[in-house]
Amino acid sequence: MVHKSATLAINEALERRLKAGEKVLHLGFGEAGLPVPDFILDVLREAAPANHYAPVTGEMAAREAAAGWFTRRGYPTDYSQILLGPGSKPLLFAAIMALDGALIIPQPAWVSYAAQAELLGVDTIKVPIGDECGGVPDPRLLSEAIAQANHDGVKIGGILLTLPDNPTGTVASQQDVDAVVEIARVNNLTIISDEIYADLVYSGEAPSPLKTYPEKTLVTSGLSKNMSLGGWRIGYIRFPRNDWGDTMRDTLIGIASETWSAMASPMQDVAAYALSEPPEIQEFVTKSKRLHEIISTAIWQEFVNAGAICRKPTAAFYIYPDFDPLRDILAAKGIDTSEKLAHELLTKHGIGTLQGSAFGDVPEALRLRVATSLVYGRTNEQRWTAYDSEDPLELPWIQESLEFLRDGLAALRR
Amino acid sequence: MVHKSATLAINEALERRLKAGEKVLHLGFGEAGLPVPDFILDVLREAAPANHYAPVTGEMAAREAAAGWFTRRGYPTDYSQILLGPGSKPLLFAAIMALDGALIIPQPAWVSYAAQAELLGVDTIKVPIGDECGGVPDPRLLSEAIAQANHDGVKIGGILLTLPDNPTGTVASQQDVDAVVEIARVNNLTIISDEIYADLVYSGEAPSPLKTYPEKTLVTSGLSKNMSLGGWRIGYIRFPRNDWGDTMRDTLIGIASETWSAMASPMQDVAAYALSEPPEIQEFVTKSKRLHEIISTAIWQEFVNAGAICRKPTAAFYIYPDFDPLRDILAAKGIDTSEKLAHELLTKHGIGTLQGSAFGDVPEALRLRVATSLVYGRTNEQRWTAYDSEDPLELPWIQESLEFLRDGLAALRR
Repeated sequence: MVHKSATLAINEALERRLKAGEKVLHLGFGEAGLPVPDFILDVLREAAPANHYAPVTGEMAAREAAAGWFTRRGYPTDYSQILLGPGSKPLLFAAIMALDGALIIPQPAWVSYAAQAELLGVDTIKVPIGDECGGVPDPRLLSEAIAQANHDGVKIGGILLTLPDNPTGTVASQQDVDAVVEIARVNNLTIISDEIYADLVYSGEAPSPLKTYPEKTLVTSGLSKNMSLGGWRIGYIRFPRNDWGDTMRDTLIGIASETWSAMASPMQDVAAYALSEPPEIQEFVTKSKRLHEIISTAIWQEFVNAGAICRKPTAAFYIYPDFDPLRDILAAKGIDTSEKLAHELLTKHGIGTLQGSAFGDVPEALRLRVATSLVYGRTNEQRWTAYDSEDPLELPWIQESLEFLRDGLAALRR
Repeated sequence: MVHKSATLAINEALERRLKAGEKVLHLGFGEAGLPVPDFILDVLREAAPANHYAPVTGEMAAREAAAGWFTRRGYPTDYSQILLGPGSKPLLFAAIMALDGALIIPQPAWVSYAAQAELLGVDTIKVPIGDECGGVPDPRLLSEAIAQANHDGVKIGGILLTLPDNPTGTVASQQDVDAVVEIARVNNLTIISDEIYADLVYSGEAPSPLKTYPEKTLVTSGLSKNMSLGGWRIGYIRFPRNDWGDTMRDTLIGIASETWSAMASPMQDVAAYALSEPPEIQEFVTKSKRLHEIISTAIWQEFVNAGAICRKPTAAFYIYPDFDPLRDILAAKGIDTSEKLAHELLTKHGIGTLQGSAFGDVPEALRLRVATSLVYGRTNEQRWTAYDSEDPLELPWIQESLEFLRDGLAALRR
């Protein structure tokens, strides 16, 4: 029995509560929380008549624009290295399907990597992240895990990195990435690098294994996070420009053609436009990122003030607080797992988060994935106001959410 | 190594030739060949701002509309029995993944069933179709195949039917379907019924295992064929309303949530609108179907006149001629497989079709899948003219295509 993705499930459950008029603070879902700007709406509307089946790879203009996105970031890319798909999720699914061996994933990691591997009968090996950031396995533990796998005769196919990371809202340094790259290189392992939040590093410095290990790195991304277009299902994957890359690309084209065919045709023009990054797109990403940083940091502060340990967010719109310092207080209430903690917060205090165990974390760790972007507003008017605001923390509905959170966390520790 | 779907590959190859200015008659691809009417364009344009991730199941309005589509055809359906997805192809993929055992498919059958099963490590058992129509295995041969599988200890999970059928452009009678249903019932097998062409039965009489075997039938469909919206990626699947159906639905929701998440949000409104079948939608389907019948029948006549044996088309926009009567003439040219025949027609006579072997047919059978809907025109103006025409066979570009076909077939047999 396959269960519904935990992130999608909590979002649907919280949306139902909100629609029923319940007072709930929705911190459960990684939607970027902003509306579609008119200049993007216009592109989709213009492209609506495109009802032909698009090429499996994506239309040439979209592939070239995605190639340009990488090239402008210092990774020269030809259109032939790009495959588009209906979101990065199916592309990750296909990449995992194409691996020859087990998949190493960070612990914790985004809910769907392990679930996809399980659907495909691919074994996963979880390697804990370090103290500073998520998305990359701790190098020492990674080496140990590989040695153990070799000892057990388990063939490893690849390592998955999330740069920047969901669930922790942090981004590894290039040095962290290179430590993993060295291990991958020695063991001739593929790296699948999920870089869908790459444009949302607060400092602007996005690391990538493409810098030092381009020959065996697959990068997935999409417009769901930087452009806030999750529901439009626009994703892409970049292959190395070598024989191995060509083989992987052709394999994924085969999988794509028999699984989802192609990204919706009207969305091809949206991809071509947004990925070419004209000034208005750049401005939208820059201003969105600023809002994400301000709100994520404020919410992080609330959790720290409430006594949780938490890595300070450096990217995207998540934090991953650890309530271990409150373990005794919580144990007195019968709360000794992240699942019970998330349940208590939701049912007693109206705060919707997701337990760390959904991300493959150890169940007893009192860690939660807190998504911060749905507090920007419930209406597009509120969201645009937050986006344009000099000081979004002063907006009444955001203040109200932060107060609601503060009160709930205070009640939790009482 | 997984190869690109044969139908998508031939389409892309033929489109490249056409764009390069070559004189090619494109009979290679199952695109419905008509533009998007304004009343549908308006719905997508209106829905463009929907950038939220849609529920995995699809939005309620779309599920209810799809349920209504079935209910109006005599199969009472609740919204809870419906799952939407980005095309029916991923839904078929998920249904095959959820099967417990091998899949029986007709021979020939649409290219992707066997390819999907292979990707998933599901065995397929091919059972030839009868002389009258495709899409259902011959009942006697089906019983034999099941007996053989039982004898060999091979567990069978289900039988796939295509009603109406691609590649043959024919539709089974309800009696044909019921013969298969009886065998499925005795053996407690799931039937997956691909009914994406159900609205395009020329007589209007669409058979379905839902009539006599609703308890174990999964039906897939979409808007790609009846509404000519292949590139918009709108599909749905119907589950039985019983415990088994609920379990299958929840399993497919799980697969969907970890594979493609959901159909694009702006497309949800399109599904809700089109599947509610207001008068303008009904008229579009009716007039499209008339055009498909006129052109398919005319192209069938050309192949019959050229000496091929061919089932007369009764649905959709395909024919499946058999050049066995010309075997000696073709053998003298070194043509003794359907692949060589398709290659000869394309390279020597500019006629793009697809070899029967791509559909799982025996390679030596000189059979071709001929898609007939791309002759309506190369421009939307031509296509609308064909759609509105009292006598589309009189239109000069269609006459020209038929003459080009006639000349090519005549040259082939010389």
